[in-house]
Amino acid sequence: MPHFDRIEYKPIPVRDLLIEMKNISELMIDLAYSAALFNDKELAEDVLTLEEYVDNLSYLLDMEIMVAAQGDPSDAQDLIGVSTVASAADKISDAAADIADIVTRNIGIHPIVGEIFENVQERLMKATVKKDSVIVGKQLKELDLAARMGVDVIAIRRNRDWIINPEEDERIYSGDILITRGAPEGTKEFKDLAEGKLTTLEEE
Amino acid sequence: MPHFDRIEYKPIPVRDLLIEMKNISELMIDLAYSAALFNDKELAEDVLTLEEYVDNLSYLLDMEIMVAAQGDPSDAQDLIGVSTVASAADKISDAAADIADIVTRNIGIHPIVGEIFENVQERLMKATVKKDSVIVGKQLKELDLAARMGVDVIAIRRNRDWIINPEEDERIYSGDILITRGAPEGTKEFKDLAEGKLTTLEEE
Repeated sequence: MPHFDRIEYKPIPVRDLLIEMKNISELMIDLAYSAALFNDKELAEDVLTLEEYVDNLSYLLDMEIMVAAQGDPSDAQDLIGVSTVASAADKISDAAADIADIVTRNIGIHPIVGEIFENVQERLMKATVKKDSVIVGKQLKELDLAARMGVDVIAIRRNRDWIINPEEDERIYSGDILITRGAPEGTKEFKDLAEGKLTTLEEE
Repeated sequence: MPHFDRIEYKPIPVRDLLIEMKNISELMIDLAYSAALFNDKELAEDVLTLEEYVDNLSYLLDMEIMVAAQGDPSDAQDLIGVSTVASAADKISDAAADIADIVTRNIGIHPIVGEIFENVQERLMKATVKKDSVIVGKQLKELDLAARMGVDVIAIRRNRDWIINPEEDERIYSGDILITRGAPEGTKEFKDLAEGKLTTLEEE
């Protein structure tokens, strides 16, 4: 069990906490596999930081749920589902941290584990954006990658920092390192675009 | 903690056990969300059965790892990574079972939880195959859905049973209920194909 410093209570809607926990925890699985696949310790460290963040969200959510139940058993019953989904997200985030830990602790990658990591290579991709790439200067929403190629940018490395789960109005710069997840075909196409091997962005 | 009947020990390669644990546990998350989204109790029950299956695999894997370490600390160190990935898969499978449990226990779906489930609707789809659909009689590998549309068939309901994670040589029959996961665009296209609203299977 993690230990907490006393967290200051400020009300945050249960809905927002739960959606954030679910989104971040699922993202963490792919980030942890990316860290392992590309042997990136800093990304692995970021996954461990995210795990603490999810633990904090979980703590805040537990407080919110207790307050929301208002001492009423019927309200409490309604809230059981919320608490179950939150606990599921917490377990997923722990699992991601376990995998990231293999990378940060320098545990040798057993060939069997290597094979597991290679299996995720189909849906995870790392590419460095070349200066003549057509995607330089574009916002993620302009590229509309999810609809166009079934690809999501899950992290951007820029100036030694990882931007995790970038916003849709984030712009892509030359030299950015992108990690994406998605369908194999779209992934290959997007890698070629980022690396300047493909110069036309197909119209939808 | 689950309780086990004594499981008969028969050697299975660690590699096979680990790959199966990883694949099944990740699939279970999407199956659990599908069960919730489509309010399908039988699918939820299947997720709970899969959780027991993953528990058994985990138990067998623990035994294999102990045998493989051969009493040698250096071998044991090499195997830590394997055991970590297995434990991560086990946590993911527990998380999926938590979500499936909301469906089987008839816990009312709190609006906040409903919203969480709706968020996965983009990548999960359920369709009934109409008798005049062009995909009737085709094997999954002939359709080559992953490469073509970024879509995977994760479960087929046929004759009151769910076929979970169907093999590539599985054929599609009229009346099958399919659950798929994948990119939103491909998903929509595949639903139209299954329901006979789209009659041409584009060439790659």
